[in-house]
Order: sequence, then structure tokens, then C-alpha cells
Amino acid sequence: MRTSIATVSLSGTLTEKLTAAARAGFDGVEIFENDLLASPLTPREIRARCLDLGLGIDLYQPLRDIEAVPAEAFARNLRRARHKFELMGELGADTVLVCSSVDPEAIDDDALAAAQLRELADLAQGFGIRVAYEALAWGRHVSTYDHAWRIVEAAGHPALGTCLDSFHILSRGSDPKGIEDIPGEKIFFLQLADAPLPAMDVLQWSRHHRCFPGQGGFDVAGLVRHVLRTGYDGPLSLEVFNDVFRQAEAAPTAVDARRSLLVLQEEVGVAQPPAPVVPTGVAFAELVTADAEPLTALLGGLGFTRTARHRSKPVDLWQQGEARLLVNTGTAVRRDGTRLAAVGLESPDPPGAAARAEALLAPVLPRRRAPKDAPLDAVAAPDGTELFFCDARLADWRADFEDVGEPAAVAAPGVRGIDHLALTQPWHHFDEAALFHRGVLGLRAEDSVDVADPYGLQRSRAVSNADGTVRIVLTVQAAPGDDTVHAQHIAFATDDVVAAARRLRDAGVPLLPIPANYYDDLAARHEFADGELETYRELGILYDHDEHGTLRHCYTRTVGRVFFELLQRDGGHRGYGARNAPVRLAAQHAVRTPTALTSQP
Amino acid sequence: MRTSIATVSLSGTLTEKLTAAARAGFDGVEIFENDLLASPLTPREIRARCLDLGLGIDLYQPLRDIEAVPAEAFARNLRRARHKFELMGELGADTVLVCSSVDPEAIDDDALAAAQLRELADLAQGFGIRVAYEALAWGRHVSTYDHAWRIVEAAGHPALGTCLDSFHILSRGSDPKGIEDIPGEKIFFLQLADAPLPAMDVLQWSRHHRCFPGQGGFDVAGLVRHVLRTGYDGPLSLEVFNDVFRQAEAAPTAVDARRSLLVLQEEVGVAQPPAPVVPTGVAFAELVTADAEPLTALLGGLGFTRTARHRSKPVDLWQQGEARLLVNTGTAVRRDGTRLAAVGLESPDPPGAAARAEALLAPVLPRRRAPKDAPLDAVAAPDGTELFFCDARLADWRADFEDVGEPAAVAAPGVRGIDHLALTQPWHHFDEAALFHRGVLGLRAEDSVDVADPYGLQRSRAVSNADGTVRIVLTVQAAPGDDTVHAQHIAFATDDVVAAARRLRDAGVPLLPIPANYYDDLAARHEFADGELETYRELGILYDHDEHGTLRHCYTRTVGRVFFELLQRDGGHRGYGARNAPVRLAAQHAVRTPTALTSQP
Repeated sequence: MRTSIATVSLSGTLTEKLTAAARAGFDGVEIFENDLLASPLTPREIRARCLDLGLGIDLYQPLRDIEAVPAEAFARNLRRARHKFELMGELGADTVLVCSSVDPEAIDDDALAAAQLRELADLAQGFGIRVAYEALAWGRHVSTYDHAWRIVEAAGHPALGTCLDSFHILSRGSDPKGIEDIPGEKIFFLQLADAPLPAMDVLQWSRHHRCFPGQGGFDVAGLVRHVLRTGYDGPLSLEVFNDVFRQAEAAPTAVDARRSLLVLQEEVGVAQPPAPVVPTGVAFAELVTADAEPLTALLGGLGFTRTARHRSKPVDLWQQGEARLLVNTGTAVRRDGTRLAAVGLESPDPPGAAARAEALLAPVLPRRRAPKDAPLDAVAAPDGTELFFCDARLADWRADFEDVGEPAAVAAPGVRGIDHLALTQPWHHFDEAALFHRGVLGLRAEDSVDVADPYGLQRSRAVSNADGTVRIVLTVQAAPGDDTVHAQHIAFATDDVVAAARRLRDAGVPLLPIPANYYDDLAARHEFADGELETYRELGILYDHDEHGTLRHCYTRTVGRVFFELLQRDGGHRGYGARNAPVRLAAQHAVRTPTALTSQP
Repeated sequence: MRTSIATVSLSGTLTEKLTAAARAGFDGVEIFENDLLASPLTPREIRARCLDLGLGIDLYQPLRDIEAVPAEAFARNLRRARHKFELMGELGADTVLVCSSVDPEAIDDDALAAAQLRELADLAQGFGIRVAYEALAWGRHVSTYDHAWRIVEAAGHPALGTCLDSFHILSRGSDPKGIEDIPGEKIFFLQLADAPLPAMDVLQWSRHHRCFPGQGGFDVAGLVRHVLRTGYDGPLSLEVFNDVFRQAEAAPTAVDARRSLLVLQEEVGVAQPPAPVVPTGVAFAELVTADAEPLTALLGGLGFTRTARHRSKPVDLWQQGEARLLVNTGTAVRRDGTRLAAVGLESPDPPGAAARAEALLAPVLPRRRAPKDAPLDAVAAPDGTELFFCDARLADWRADFEDVGEPAAVAAPGVRGIDHLALTQPWHHFDEAALFHRGVLGLRAEDSVDVADPYGLQRSRAVSNADGTVRIVLTVQAAPGDDTVHAQHIAFATDDVVAAARRLRDAGVPLLPIPANYYDDLAARHEFADGELETYRELGILYDHDEHGTLRHCYTRTVGRVFFELLQRDGGHRGYGARNAPVRLAAQHAVRTPTALTSQP
């Protein structure tokens, strides 16, 4: 029998994955859509590479959320499918995976599902393509293999069969014996995976994955309130079995633990630390670098000007609109170590904010020492970033800087301010960091999202104040590795990302090149005005939308450990481009790897 | 309210944990039994240390499997409890945690549970101790907090109350509102932990924790057999979403993946690689070292003699009974890098074993090159250990060695042979290693067990042949860290561990010192003949038993990355001393850390 492997099972760029699969002796691969989107190779080039390596492309995956939808939505789905079938023709792949819908709008109607899958198969057949329909274990209405097969059987189309996946079948506890009732020629594909059972076992959950209150998903405070109502006055004691804590240093873990209890005690009303003082804006972001040139070249291209310098230290203030960056060459840092070292947070009550932070065990930093320096209150975040609490009128720290005469002009189309800061966390400090920003700064934490980097999964979680004037995105690798390879970034808000990107390009500052496959996929997923998509493609602008509006954004190259983003939110879009992050991350790896093949000019 | 933390929540030795808890501002601690057993401090010294640090000992935990058992078993349990109450007196702890029984022999009888807990509380009261009874979420008959409370209420004893744990309550989905029905003064203790919910979610399970067939807990082969019966002849394709694989290098992951498919294909009868040739014994273990002296001093003390040397390489053969060690000073290795580099496996068909290994993609090593060397077939295990397939009559490799005239005397009491080899795996190669030893060598894999090291959890899994003449224990850290801190070891079988340990001591070779607290606990758990326990205590011999018999074992100090174990199995005991491993690991850390406090002479 042929053996295949899905590209998602391996690390790296698409070509690395293909090479590894071929060298290990696999006959073919399933190409996972994200691997294709992120690749600089065209589909035809990928096909040629596979041919060279002796690999067949046994499956292209997946088409999602296709079936059992209202007619209008289905028409859009068919349009998207046609795009993908054309792509598969170039790729030389003849089987496509369709996963059972997880769309909340999907209708619980097997006959409708069968009719629409029949229509899809009919379209596919014209391209010489077979459709393999698979039940996801968490499908909206179809979640078992026998159910998926009944729909395929009802559809009765020669280009429609089923795909079986051992994970989806066995994780549901379905009896696989029923598979024998399906004719072999209607099983178009078989995907295999094993999984450790203890992931679902409360004993393993308890012994390995407990965490401190506020770092998980339980309503611990609710429980404690019930206990307090009984008159209980014994200790609140943390008993946490956690594989990572067992290995981490005891002292910071103990501090983290007691901070979690303090937040909990406040929540249930048995402790009154100083109230949180929520920051109202980003006063500045401070970059430290051994060589300011590459950084200031980028900032100049972005329309920033150097407006002031510090009276006693080698620190320059670069400004545009409400975005203020300090470029500090006075701190010892390796040449490739340019990084975001400090954030000034505008606070309605800086001493109050510092008192809160200190009460919650944040390490308080020594105040700046130069004779005339404004004594700013500062604490260290768990990742080492220094957080300064600044007067919201900038009365304090700005006085340490003297103007250098150049006007703080806002170039049109310009940067309005800082939209968000993205800070990379050490891999095992993610939950601690979220609790810190929530508890110490009074920010709200959003749900965390997974983002696929070619060399590992990342988790990303935003914390922000209510009006979005302070947004910090915490990112972390899902599994441990070299923390320093992932960069921090500063996203600048603009009202016209297209014009801003053009100006950057015209200033000779290269933007991050985005693979053509990404734009082909955008074309399949959205309708654009004439020329709109071509503009994005030309400038490397990424696109997303949610129920509130659209997000358009592009990226500079990386300097040291920092890069910049230009970002335009319209209609109140609330996201951070998580959907585009895998493509962005792959593009960043590609420009870092000089040997990377590219179809870009 | 007081705040406490269980020592199990933090990393390190007991004193490190206490210091970290005090510095973070906790008022007290729960002392976890294993932390006490592994500590060189006496209970009184621990009490004094806590007093110094301003920490109370708010709870001692736990007593397990106490209640609802037949009268005879309960009498043994009371005897054990009395020991622990005496210890708590020295410790100055006044509350003990009793977890609901998980003993399969426990009886589903609340009245019996209540009566026995009342009797336990009565005993405790005499020592000034309170008993806090807690429902474990996986308790045999009592698994919810309200059930535990009903039993406590029925028992009606002033020294008996309940302990609430947010994990056990919320992980079961119990409604915590019912807590308000318990009088506050009967809640003796409150333990808090949070936990991430997605651990129980099939979507997260699928997206992060899939693995290759044979590395998890699904019957993937069974499913494939059903599929084959349908006449399916498409590809077998691996689709594995795994956080670690996403980060690991693609090439070895792809090889690992295809090996898993090859084993699966063989299992379901669609591939016929050369049949496994199960090894029948350990021909030799090869240690490489830059300085043979510390190693050979140990081996001499153990009764080994140098019997032969290699004809062309700086390799000596040390032998005793059927235990043969090669000491190789010819391989470049750091002075502190002494390690177990190769294992010779006796095989009834060495070329056949090598052909199997090669077919299953094990890296084949170049044969040894010296002109007269016997050309041994060898492959590399996933951890880099070289595995040589040797003729079972030792006809091949032994001829490369010339006798040095010293007799291969078996000193009485002597080492009979090698009982097992323990090989430390890189943390993310554990499942791969087990599949390798199972698939390539035809060994059986036992279940993996968790072992608490002071600085992190370890997982340990034994692979062996049917008659136990080849046993390899694979160990790995549960979370990533510095792989090199954990040592490999060779366990030698002896028929008289006491005499062997005495001889070693008399030869001036120090054995690993075991804390006195360990022996006090043994006295609480088992009955020994007169003087027996004192002998173990004097020599540092550890003790365990299972349903088959007893295990007694002791350890040498560590040289480089290797240490030795002397082990006596009686009555067919099958274990490897996992129960004693936390104490052994802590003792090893203690002798490595020159500043460690110790009550040992």
C-alpha cells in the first residue's frame, strides 16, 4: 500500500517537509492548505518539486464548512471550491478533503448536506477531482464516520466518497467495526493518528496540569465565596501539581503563586490591595540597540522624525502623531540584540499604579538616577520588560528631553499612534504574564489563540483596556525551544495603510514580501473591488475581517528582535490578524534564510 | 486570612521550597510526604527551619487508603497512622489530610467509612491532631465533596472535619453552592488550584496531542484491519497535529513517522519486513570515559576484575558473573562526560536482527574497522546509544580481546549479571524510543510511570524480553530542560544485596546515603524482622514489594553521567523501584550539591 504523510505532521517550510518525507521513504503527501499559502513556490513549482522527489500529492486539504448551508452561502462556497479545484489542477492533486461543517449556521439536514455535496462532487468531477467527505469529531451536526457515510451514500455521486480518520473515530469511542459496511471503493482516503489517552483522564489532569487560581478556566473565586459564607476561617492554601512548576525555579514560582492568591483574595473581598489604576495610553515604547542606524532608517521611512534627545543619556525621541519611540544606545546590548525593552504607560495616577504593582509583588525597579531625571515609577513584567507609569499629560518624562528643533510633523498619510505592542514571553510564563497584566495593570485578557509558525505553534493572547488605547499582545511558543528566535513588534495605527505602505516602498524601505499563494486564496475567499487585491499583492498588505469590520496590515523587515507593523482598522475590527499570522511568520523565516527559494522578484 | 502553599507546588529540595514560600510572603505550608521523606533534615529540624522562616506547617499530607476496609487492614492502617501522628508531633503540624480511598479493595459502605474515620479521629485527638477528610475526584467510592461531608457528619467526631479542594470539586463539575450547607468550623482546610479546561476538550486533544500510531493509546491497527476488509486500497496516510513535532527537526520526525507506519503495516499484514529477532541477553555494556580511575575503583569495589583488553583499542573488559563491562578510554569525551555509550545485545541471529533494524529505518552504524575486529552489526537507538547485535555464545566480539591473566572470579557475595540498563532519553523522544525498542528489537513495553525528582517530574518506562534477561528502562523528563543532568545507570543483579553492600562499604566505596526519614516511613508501612530495618538504614538499602515478592536495592555515587545499582529480586518481583526513586533522586541531588545540609554523619 502507498504510504503518505500530511505536511502538517512535520516542521519547517513546505520544501523542508517534502524533502524529509521523501528521504524517509514516503510515497506521497497530503498538502495542508496553510503550508501552500505560506510557500513562495507556485503550485506548479510545488508539483515539480514533488515529482523530483518521487512524491505523489495524494490529498489536498481541506475545504471547510461547505455543506448544509442556505443556498446563497452555498453559492459562495462553490465559488471558493472552483478556485481550489483550479489550484489542484496546477498542483496535480486529484483528491480533496471536505471536513464536516463546524459552522454554527449549518443546518441539521442530511438531505440538504447530501444534495450540496453531490453538487460539489459534480463540479469536482469536471476537474478530474474526487471529494472525500470526513466527519470531524467536533462537527456541528455530523461528527461520526457512519453519519458521514450515510450522507455520502445518499448523495450517490461517483466523485464523492468518504475519508476515514482514526483520530476522529477512536476519540469519539465509535466502534470501528461498522467501517466494514462501507464499500472499499467509496473510502477515498484513510488518515491515521494515535493519541495518548490520559489527556482525557481527570487523574492525569490533576497530577500534571493544575495551575494557580486565575491562570486556568475554573471559577475558583466563586467556590471560595461559597466557602467563606460557611464561616470558614482556615488558610487559603494552594495545592498545584504542575510538570512545569516542578522544574521551574522555586522563588519566582512562589511569587507568582502568591500574586494569584492576592488577586483571588481581592476578588472575594478578604484583601484590599491598592485599587488597580488602568493605564489610559502608551506614552512611549523604548527600543535598546547597539546601532541605531538600521532602526532609524526604518523609522524615517515610516514618517517618524527625531524630535528630542535626552538631557543626560544617549536616548533619542522619535515621534509621529501620538506614537513616541525612545531609541536607546546607552544600554549594553549585542549588535543583533535590538529589542523592545520598556513601555511607558500613561496613567491617571502613576504612584497609585506603582503601589498596586508593588502590593501584587511586581519587582519594583530603581528609579532613574540622573540628577535632573523625573523619578518615574517602574516595575518589571514577568518577561523582563520594564513598565513605566507616566503622567497622562506627559508632564514628567518628556521634560528630561530637549527638543532638537525638528518638528514633530505628522506626515500624511501618517502613523496616528501605537495600536499595539507584541511581547514574546518565555514559553512557560504565558499564564503568569496574562495574570500579571490583568491583576497588576487592570487590563482585560482576551482568549488565547493558536498561530502556526513553520517551526512550531505559537499561542497569542491580547490584554487591553476598555477603549483599546492600550493593547498588548502576549505571544509564546506552544512547546519549548529557543525563545529568542521569535521577535517582538510594535504595530502603528494608520488611517491609510495603502498610502503608508507606498510611501515606505518609495523611501526604499523594503516591506515583508508575502507569497502570491496568499493572494490567490484571498481571491477565493472574498470579493474585492477592481484593482484592490492587486494593490495588496503589490505592497504585501494582508487582509482580514470580522463581524465588525476589516483589518489591513503590512510589516517591515526585522531589525534584531524587533519589527514594525502598519495597521488600519475599519468599522471597529477588533482582531490582530491571527488568521494571517502563519503566512507572515513563514515570510519572516524566508527572508531570514538566505537560501530560501522564492518566486518573488 | 492565612495563605499557604503545598510544597508539591514548588521545585527543589524541601528547604529550597520553604525558603521560596517564606520570601514570597506565605504564612504557612502544607508539607507533602515525599518532600519530607527525601529530606536529610529530621522532622524537628524541619520544624525549627519553618519557625526561623516564619512559616507555620498548616497541613501534613496525606494519609491514603485508610477507610472502609476490612478490620484487619484497618488495624494496619491505624498502626501506620500512629507513626505519622508521632512524626507530626515532632513536626508541629496539627492537621492531617486523609484522601478518600482509591484502594480497589475498599468497600462501598458509608457507615463503615464513618466508623473507621471516627476511630482514626479519636486516635488523632490523643496527639492533638485534627483529621481533614477530602474526596478525591477519582476516589473509589467517595469522589464528591458532599459525599465526603455526609460521611464526616455521620462520624460526628470533633477531631474530624472535611478538606475542600477546588480542583476535585470543579473538575467533577459539582455545584460548589452546596458547600454553604457545611458548617464553617467543620471545614478544616481549603486547597485551591485552577486548571486549564481545554485538557478535556476533543478539539484541543486533536490539534495538539496526536501522535504516530503505536505511540499513543488507540487501537489504530484494529481500525486499519476493518478498513482493509472493505477492499480499500488507497494510501495509509499519517495526519498528526502535535505541538512538539511542529518544532522538532523534520527529517528525524519523518523517519519516526514512517517507522510507525511500517510497524503498523506489519501488524495488519500488508508488509513483511524481516521478522524481529528478540535479544536473549546483554552481552556487554560499554562505558566511555576520559579517566577510567573513578569508574574502575567503583567496579573493583563491586567485585569486578579486569579480565581482558582489546587487541587494538584502549578498551578493557571488566567482568563478574555474566556482567561484562567495556571501559573505553579511546573515545573523545569530556572529563565529566563518562557515559553509557553502547550496549551489546546477545542475539540468536545477529544479521537477522540487523536486517530487521535496517528495514525499520534504524540508522546502521559503520562496522568496526580495525583489521582483526569481528564485524559486529550495530544500529543507533533514538537517544544515540549504539546497539550491537552479538552472537549469543560471545564467539564474535570476545575474540577481539586478549586475556590479561586475571581470573574472572565471581566474588561471593557477587554480581550475577546485569539486571537492567536505564537510559535517559531526550525529553521529546520518549514515545519514539519505546516504539523503537518494541518495533525494532521486539521487546515488550510496560506502562510508563511518573517519578518525582526534586527538580522536575520524570517518566520512566521499561522494555524487556519475555524472560527478563534483557531489561531496559527508558527515562525522560516530563517537561523540557537540561537533558544532561539526569544520569544513566546499570543495575547489577545479586543474590545477597546486604552482603554485597557491606563489601562495597568495607572496600571504602561510598554508597548513596539515604535519609533517615525514609526508614521511619518504611517502619510505618511494613513489619520487619528484628534488626532488618536497621541493616537497611545502615547501608542505604531501599525496599519495595509487589504481589510477587520483594525488591532490595542500593546505589553507588555517580561518576560523570553514570551510576550503578545493586539489586536483589526475590519471589519474582517485577518492578524497578519506582516507589523509591524520588528518595533516590533527591539523595543524588544532595550529594551533588556541596552546600546541602545533611544530618548524615
